[in-house]
Amino acid sequence: MLEKYILAAKRDRKSDLVLKNATYVDVFTATLKKGDIAIVGEKIVGIGEYEGEREIDCSNLVVTPGFIDGHVHIESSQLSPEEFASLIVPRGTTTIIADPHEITNVCGMAGPEYIAKASRNVPLDVMLQMPSCVPATPFETSGAVLDGKDIEKNIKNEYIFGLGEFMNYPGVINCVPDVLKKLEAAHASGKIIDGHAPSVYGYELNAYLCGGISTDHECVTKDEVEEKISKGMYVHIRHGSSTQNLGNAKYITDSNLRRFILCTDDRHAADLKEKGHIDDALRRLVKDGLDPVRAVTCATLNCAECYGLKWRGAIAPFYLADLVILDGLKNFDAEYVLKSGKVVAQNGKPLFDTSRRYLPKNVLNTVHLKEMHADDFILTLKGNKAKAMTIESGGVVTGCEIVDVESKNGDVVLERTDLLKLNVVERHKMTGNIGRALFKGYGFKGGAMGITIAHDSHNIILLGDDNESMARAANRLKEIGGGMVIVEKGGEIYSLTLDIAGLMSSRDAESLQRDSRSLIERAHAMGVKRGYEAFMSLAFLSLAVIPKLKVTDAGLFDVEKFAFTDINA
Amino acid sequence: MLEKYILAAKRDRKSDLVLKNATYVDVFTATLKKGDIAIVGEKIVGIGEYEGEREIDCSNLVVTPGFIDGHVHIESSQLSPEEFASLIVPRGTTTIIADPHEITNVCGMAGPEYIAKASRNVPLDVMLQMPSCVPATPFETSGAVLDGKDIEKNIKNEYIFGLGEFMNYPGVINCVPDVLKKLEAAHASGKIIDGHAPSVYGYELNAYLCGGISTDHECVTKDEVEEKISKGMYVHIRHGSSTQNLGNAKYITDSNLRRFILCTDDRHAADLKEKGHIDDALRRLVKDGLDPVRAVTCATLNCAECYGLKWRGAIAPFYLADLVILDGLKNFDAEYVLKSGKVVAQNGKPLFDTSRRYLPKNVLNTVHLKEMHADDFILTLKGNKAKAMTIESGGVVTGCEIVDVESKNGDVVLERTDLLKLNVVERHKMTGNIGRALFKGYGFKGGAMGITIAHDSHNIILLGDDNESMARAANRLKEIGGGMVIVEKGGEIYSLTLDIAGLMSSRDAESLQRDSRSLIERAHAMGVKRGYEAFMSLAFLSLAVIPKLKVTDAGLFDVEKFAFTDINA
Repeated sequence: MLEKYILAAKRDRKSDLVLKNATYVDVFTATLKKGDIAIVGEKIVGIGEYEGEREIDCSNLVVTPGFIDGHVHIESSQLSPEEFASLIVPRGTTTIIADPHEITNVCGMAGPEYIAKASRNVPLDVMLQMPSCVPATPFETSGAVLDGKDIEKNIKNEYIFGLGEFMNYPGVINCVPDVLKKLEAAHASGKIIDGHAPSVYGYELNAYLCGGISTDHECVTKDEVEEKISKGMYVHIRHGSSTQNLGNAKYITDSNLRRFILCTDDRHAADLKEKGHIDDALRRLVKDGLDPVRAVTCATLNCAECYGLKWRGAIAPFYLADLVILDGLKNFDAEYVLKSGKVVAQNGKPLFDTSRRYLPKNVLNTVHLKEMHADDFILTLKGNKAKAMTIESGGVVTGCEIVDVESKNGDVVLERTDLLKLNVVERHKMTGNIGRALFKGYGFKGGAMGITIAHDSHNIILLGDDNESMARAANRLKEIGGGMVIVEKGGEIYSLTLDIAGLMSSRDAESLQRDSRSLIERAHAMGVKRGYEAFMSLAFLSLAVIPKLKVTDAGLFDVEKFAFTDINA
Repeated sequence: MLEKYILAAKRDRKSDLVLKNATYVDVFTATLKKGDIAIVGEKIVGIGEYEGEREIDCSNLVVTPGFIDGHVHIESSQLSPEEFASLIVPRGTTTIIADPHEITNVCGMAGPEYIAKASRNVPLDVMLQMPSCVPATPFETSGAVLDGKDIEKNIKNEYIFGLGEFMNYPGVINCVPDVLKKLEAAHASGKIIDGHAPSVYGYELNAYLCGGISTDHECVTKDEVEEKISKGMYVHIRHGSSTQNLGNAKYITDSNLRRFILCTDDRHAADLKEKGHIDDALRRLVKDGLDPVRAVTCATLNCAECYGLKWRGAIAPFYLADLVILDGLKNFDAEYVLKSGKVVAQNGKPLFDTSRRYLPKNVLNTVHLKEMHADDFILTLKGNKAKAMTIESGGVVTGCEIVDVESKNGDVVLERTDLLKLNVVERHKMTGNIGRALFKGYGFKGGAMGITIAHDSHNIILLGDDNESMARAANRLKEIGGGMVIVEKGGEIYSLTLDIAGLMSSRDAESLQRDSRSLIERAHAMGVKRGYEAFMSLAFLSLAVIPKLKVTDAGLFDVEKFAFTDINA
């Protein structure tokens, strides 16, 4: 194994591939250097003057280590791991720390196992975190429950890299026994624990860190960044589609640089396709004034160090030949991407087979429902005042408004109101649970719409002004195995299939996006106000940790009181 | 386990120990900060305002993480691991990366096993590297041979941390199969490999690094330091007794700081006692102009990162409470030292039991010799010209001088010359091997002297002008199980026992040093010129990798020709 590297390093044999006359980022000294980068097999073997069986002229190009995304949920792209890779690898990302939190809430350990196996089809290293909070809250029915014992058993799996973002920070701080058991299991297996502790400071932060938690991607203020770094955390600079904190880069200094890493967390397929991935974060950071070599260091060596990824994240002998050949450190346009020494993308296009899909049965057909009927959606109120959920466009925080309502035949009347029925239909265990709410101001009229993405347990969120249409929508979602649906009252049904756990599609990104756009346009045509993301704005309406009023399959939930609440006002 | 940390962190219970009003080094942000440092069990649980069952007022003191020595041979102190700890722990060192190269050359795997077990008696974490080069050269008989297969088998041991300094860099560069096997075994076990590559540059360095080697402690020039860091190595700043490169600190920049670590490599008991250990390196570095916070960072966080020691090397929640409470960052005088949360030293004195010794039989009585007789030391020469070794005072490089000799009864005549017989007597396997040389200019007269420390195979080095005395010296060394000896012709024998492998003493440092000084004085009294280190200057005369003329048990060796040579000129 070593001999072929050594022989090539000392030029006793040609290297397999040489990047000639490269300017490259030396992350160890934060400088740009020049030389031929020689590669044998999956390794860089030397920098100097080299000849290769294949050579790429890099005279006017800049080479960096492959980018590492320190924290990402693949599911947010609605793409399979293979298709996800086909979008991000050509952008220069060669390693991701992935937390399959969503699919695990639906499928249990079949989720991470699927992601692990599917990822083997593509030239992207997926370090898989075991989701730590399944379910995310006890206020809803999820497809799986992973308690301390389950974590203890499963975290030892070879394909599990660490324990995913520990969102249940109150559970840590309050020493909930099963929560501590999860943390202790991770430590016993010697695996890293990712954090998630928005606005946790001072003694509470000390307490949270005593769980042995290494990272945070939720920082937004200078004080928070500085305190968390000072207390030993690595801080992610996040470039998600909905959540960003690129501004954290302003707090980088000579001394604390090594503790900053990059991530995307949640990134939609459209953004991946049109704007990019870590490359886009780098572009933005440099545009905002961060030194490009520092930016690259955060996206490579720092992240490798944080996650203990040896021989990765730098351009030096024996390091993994994960390399990005860029037009420069301003545009960060990748002309070539090398994964483990192989050219796997060129000019933004993958050179690997993007059509392969690993699709095990246990992540398909995950919508488990009895046949639904119009009567299931009758909403009987006690009086003529009720609580209605509202949501601002572009946000995930909801409001609660007391509205006047009329009823007829024991069902609320929606005609001539700005109200809709908002139901969460349990879809994992056939409990028959339906959570009921009123939703004000969304604008939709004349039928129903629904989606099987509903953070974090991913039951069905159904919206409508017609019981029959709502039943048809639910039944169609069952039929297609999950996805998005629109039903015209007494008319057509339009749907988009997300066959993998009801969260992701096994199709290619392009056709998926085309169909997705068309369905979204139809929702707007039926009244959903511009400004809302038609379907994705619904996906957070059951997330019972974000204020103010939410609805899960178990009922209406007042997040501020942290308790279920009556719809009757 | 975690609960007690968390409860104390959020002040729901008192901490076990609180360092009140401490100024402390925050290595993550390279700043001095203030606060109470709260400790529970072996961990730091928080920084803020805390109350403890015990409190230490640190108002006028500075707290740093415990120091880490990145590379040290305990044997160089001639002390047991327990006694070694009793000297360095009170100086603030709480973790060492130890390479038991010397004892392993004598005892094989019994050596590291002994060091591992003995270290458990003391509050010092000893990360044990498996010696990679046993024997160091094929030109002598060592007590043990560890080939690729042996390394493969033993490196998996739980008590082995990594593979020790890979001195055989020509073997790596030349792809010697058994050498590569050793490296591959280390990689297969996922363990780190320390380097040793003095003046190796360019393509040869690339080749060496393709062995997957992580560190170097032999750098001395700016170019060498910068090239090695740029190629991914961590560079040690070394503060040994005989080898130093503190000057490397001059090459620290904002950007490469993280790649510098501290070590001592070889440090004699007298230096440890009188000057110190890593604390002395820090004192010197700061005196020479290095920013003290940077110096501390090299000795703590950087070293922990290099060796993958998680939760160590910083003052933050969940980090190991290995702490040094200093009078300041100028003198670096440790008032208290904490190991894993316990106060283990105060005002330079250990607070732990320093008298315990683990002494297994297989590291004792390691001098295996047949009874020696005067005749064994007859040196028959062919003519009246012979090669004689010379050595400059204070050095380890030897010279070769052609001298006129007379013989009588088939033995060389030494009277009225400046010559001595220099014999290396094999002491491991009873081969009966005696290497024979002449030694010029040392000054000793009237008997014999000998030592069982002889790098790196540690046979017996015997010097004398009287065959009978030389035999008596050898026999005495056998009798005492190794050490140092002086024989007066026809008179007394004086000796110092190094009972552990003939290299280290199980006694306390103080009495050992007193007796050692007395024996050294006797050697000088018998003529050894001042300037030589009496015994220790002899210890390198068989090291067949340092020019020019050396002698091993297998004969006289010309290092420049890299071959054995005839004593007859």
